[in-house]
Amino acid sequence: MYHLLISCPDKQGLVVAVSQFIAKYQGNITQAHHYLDGHKQLFFMRNEIEAKTLSCSFAVFKTQFARLAQPYNMTWQLYDERIKKRILLMGSKTTHCVADLLHRDHEQELAGEIIGVLSNHQNLAKMANWYQVPFKHVNIKQETKAQDIQAMTKAIDEFKPDVIVLARYMQIIPKEVCQKYAGKVINIHHSFLPSFIGANPYQRAQERGVKLIGATCHYVTQDLDEGPIIEQEVIRVNHTHSTLQMQKMGQDVEKITLAKGLQHHLENKILIIDNKTIIFT
Amino acid sequence: MYHLLISCPDKQGLVVAVSQFIAKYQGNITQAHHYLDGHKQLFFMRNEIEAKTLSCSFAVFKTQFARLAQPYNMTWQLYDERIKKRILLMGSKTTHCVADLLHRDHEQELAGEIIGVLSNHQNLAKMANWYQVPFKHVNIKQETKAQDIQAMTKAIDEFKPDVIVLARYMQIIPKEVCQKYAGKVINIHHSFLPSFIGANPYQRAQERGVKLIGATCHYVTQDLDEGPIIEQEVIRVNHTHSTLQMQKMGQDVEKITLAKGLQHHLENKILIIDNKTIIFT
Amino acid sequence: MYHLLISCPDKQGLVVAVSQFIAKYQGNITQAHHYLDGHKQLFFMRNEIEAKTLSCSFAVFKTQFARLAQPYNMTWQLYDERIKKRILLMGSKTTHCVADLLHRDHEQELAGEIIGVLSNHQNLAKMANWYQVPFKHVNIKQETKAQDIQAMTKAIDEFKPDVIVLARYMQIIPKEVCQKYAGKVINIHHSFLPSFIGANPYQRAQERGVKLIGATCHYVTQDLDEGPIIEQEVIRVNHTHSTLQMQKMGQDVEKITLAKGLQHHLENKILIIDNKTIIFT
Amino acid sequence: MYHLLISCPDKQGLVVAVSQFIAKYQGNITQAHHYLDGHKQLFFMRNEIEAKTLSCSFAVFKTQFARLAQPYNMTWQLYDERIKKRILLMGSKTTHCVADLLHRDHEQELAGEIIGVLSNHQNLAKMANWYQVPFKHVNIKQETKAQDIQAMTKAIDEFKPDVIVLARYMQIIPKEVCQKYAGKVINIHHSFLPSFIGANPYQRAQERGVKLIGATCHYVTQDLDEGPIIEQEVIRVNHTHSTLQMQKMGQDVEKITLAKGLQHHLENKILIIDNKTIIFT
Repeated sequence: MYHLLISCPDKQGLVVAVSQFIAKYQGNITQAHHYLDGHKQLFFMRNEIEAKTLSCSFAVFKTQFARLAQPYNMTWQLYDERIKKRILLMGSKTTHCVADLLHRDHEQELAGEIIGVLSNHQNLAKMANWYQVPFKHVNIKQETKAQDIQAMTKAIDEFKPDVIVLARYMQIIPKEVCQKYAGKVINIHHSFLPSFIGANPYQRAQERGVKLIGATCHYVTQDLDEGPIIEQEVIRVNHTHSTLQMQKMGQDVEKITLAKGLQHHLENKILIIDNKTIIFT
Repeated sequence: MYHLLISCPDKQGLVVAVSQFIAKYQGNITQAHHYLDGHKQLFFMRNEIEAKTLSCSFAVFKTQFARLAQPYNMTWQLYDERIKKRILLMGSKTTHCVADLLHRDHEQELAGEIIGVLSNHQNLAKMANWYQVPFKHVNIKQETKAQDIQAMTKAIDEFKPDVIVLARYMQIIPKEVCQKYAGKVINIHHSFLPSFIGANPYQRAQERGVKLIGATCHYVTQDLDEGPIIEQEVIRVNHTHSTLQMQKMGQDVEKITLAKGLQHHLENKILIIDNKTIIFT
Repeated sequence: MYHLLISCPDKQGLVVAVSQFIAKYQGNITQAHHYLDGHKQLFFMRNEIEAKTLSCSFAVFKTQFARLAQPYNMTWQLYDERIKKRILLMGSKTTHCVADLLHRDHEQELAGEIIGVLSNHQNLAKMANWYQVPFKHVNIKQETKAQDIQAMTKAIDEFKPDVIVLARYMQIIPKEVCQKYAGKVINIHHSFLPSFIGANPYQRAQERGVKLIGATCHYVTQDLDEGPIIEQEVIRVNHTHSTLQMQKMGQDVEKITLAKGLQHHLENKILIIDNKTIIFT
Repeated sequence: MYHLLISCPDKQGLVVAVSQFIAKYQGNITQAHHYLDGHKQLFFMRNEIEAKTLSCSFAVFKTQFARLAQPYNMTWQLYDERIKKRILLMGSKTTHCVADLLHRDHEQELAGEIIGVLSNHQNLAKMANWYQVPFKHVNIKQETKAQDIQAMTKAIDEFKPDVIVLARYMQIIPKEVCQKYAGKVINIHHSFLPSFIGANPYQRAQERGVKLIGATCHYVTQDLDEGPIIEQEVIRVNHTHSTLQMQKMGQDVEKITLAKGLQHHLENKILIIDNKTIIFT
């Protein structure tokens, strides 16, 4: 299956052009979503195209589509579903999200493959090892910041990741990484944003006495906790729950919200527009 | 806005043909969903088309489309969003669903208009009256069954409904009505089907000690509680809740599930295939 | 049934003293919750006591209990379930919450009775009238503020309310009312607080691109949207939903969250401690 | 902390007697729930008692309480929270529930400890091994049934489990085990019971076209899928989901529902009465 994602200024004949193109190469559409943002006059489109009926290679299809795309000012992406995205996990001491994703990978649940774990702590090494996933230790210290950032960037680059998952990674990602991997870094924040932006959300939730706590999966931008939201989930809490209990309960929501959000990304279901996501599900 | 719904055997060129047709008449697609059922090799499609840019009338558009549809063996429907569907409510003693829908109608929340209330009890008359909606009393008695069914059928027909909503209507709908209005009668069942099919679902839920109770909005077929499901919702209950309390709590779920399911129908988002619904949301 | 709510400094023998007191008057406990806040060393307790087995009147029971309570420094409340709380609704142009509560009252779903509707608009008059609930128009204008506040306070006082419900009332409640009816004014805010405190929460939710919107039922304090939270609910939204659609969808959540929160209050299930609620459900 | 659970015929003075007993030994109640089932005239009670303030040992407390309990015909249980319940997992080929519980155990999230994994397949051996939990292979074959059941019973007994968790264990548990460990065997069923009792619930859910699928955690009795329900959860599905996708999606619900239900059991929050659970949360 190929996934073709398009966003461009709205224009009559757009759908005809795209569907004619697909038909010309004997492509068969199995799912498609079109969406027009009336305010911005932007058109968004996602097509799932059966690969086996196509009369040309992925490369040819791609080259030819580029020619179609240009006059329409399309921003577009074409993916071959069989080429699994390379996922790099970044974790810290907390293990639940890393463990959950490694297990999903092991069970071949993910539409991608985990190719490495980076952490600023050593405790995930054994787990990664058991799952036969390469592990690297990286840490950015205040004293050796510049050089640590360089080392981290190098470590990341060497993994050649298609997507970087901050699986409860507790340090701030260097600006350089954010820029280089824009739209490819996914974070899980342990609150239903925009509530409790920043540190210690469970403690603040407990203090405020909210009746729902949650988690938010979002793309990372340079503005902390302000990137495009992919997925959110909540669970019910009450007055008997301490901050610690909320943390434990929240872990289930974090795991599932991150896995769901990541899966949408891996299945090429997401378009980012300004600071929001369009998710074709 | 026009809504164009299509289901037909899958065939290459289908999407091209439809999109070319729309483009030919200067139509602008604002939302579309395509879905291929790979097992049945059936293709489903829903298009929202901006009406104001069209170069022809609704009637012409429809006639012309019929010609396109034939060789593809399409089953299709075309709706003009501005022509509101006529909704007939059927209720019994219980008022919550009828009251909820009447209020939504009054607030112009529904993509349709309620044009009448039929009931086998008198207690809804005053309410319908306050909302300035015509009320008719119909009742099917064992002794005069044949003639009562005839009277009911006549009463229904006179309202010329596009959709009939069984808003906790507690009698069985005559076979004749089911057949005549196939795919146009929507029921709310007070359990998360297929659990507790039939009578007294709350009592049986209480006895079984389930931790979730629910409601199911579905199309009515001649097999009681077996028609295509449109929408389902649940809420949490516990050991302290009596059957009566579950009934009260369940009313909120029933209202909302029915309103949601009905709205999907009114917005022409549903295709029925065999005994299931495809809902393009 | 009597409801006895207690909060006091933790002390050994407390539960014995209370249960002995109840037993002494032939009271039968049908439900009870005890909760110790270990940090604050405060003990909270709610008892449901069968009234019919009691050997003394409500008045005597109350007077006697006061004597027990004093040495323990108890803050306590005793309610006779049969004496329905008097509910005053305050609304503005938006009708959904007022309509929902009036219908629940009419169906005798509420553990209290609506005794009046106050609004700064006239459009609710007819509805209140149909439900045979007294309606009063009050409005606080900038030019005549002092005198309007006085008129409103008078209007409220004349209703002798036990609880005031701001059912999407869009003006700010005078400080005087907040103080006089502290712990007795319940508001519904149209966001899952603390997200989108203040005005236009749906618009801001739409702009932020959140995937869940919600509503919060809370006690009103002088700090706007900062009072103790009683109940919260959310629903899922996506990129296709405009601010207006979110508003419509949010109405269902608002209605249900308000009704649930109010019901907890009416059933005397809530204790307020600092800025949080303890809810015994 | 001690947990004291009581069920007995309702009788005046019951609460006084129990609270006096606790006070006599300097016990401090930190949480308590009382519940009267009015129909059955049965009283249920759960107390959390601070252990450190007690003036006697657990053994003495227990012996003395037995003397109090007898005249009231109490069925009662007393637990010392510090003595972790021994959990035995039984699994088959499917790994997600076993993996999830082993990880929770490893993270010390469970109020108990996993002391073994039994499976009729070998594939869980490595995982158990990595978590340093003993693994045993047991299998009941048709040909050697009697002797296999004996071997399994022996294997189970040797683990001295306090609770047996069927973590997607796909064989039927021998009657002997059900009887011996009545109220101590917890299963996760992959549907929201009573829907889709028996085999292949996801396939049947897909065929019926339900909009919610779920999981049910329940105590095992000799009537398959009919035991007392502890916890239930659902998630939303739609027409695009195949049976296989529902299976994958359902795994998250199964894991969480099982973990939640098990945790309630480990925290001694559940009383079983007839075929239902009372859960004090």
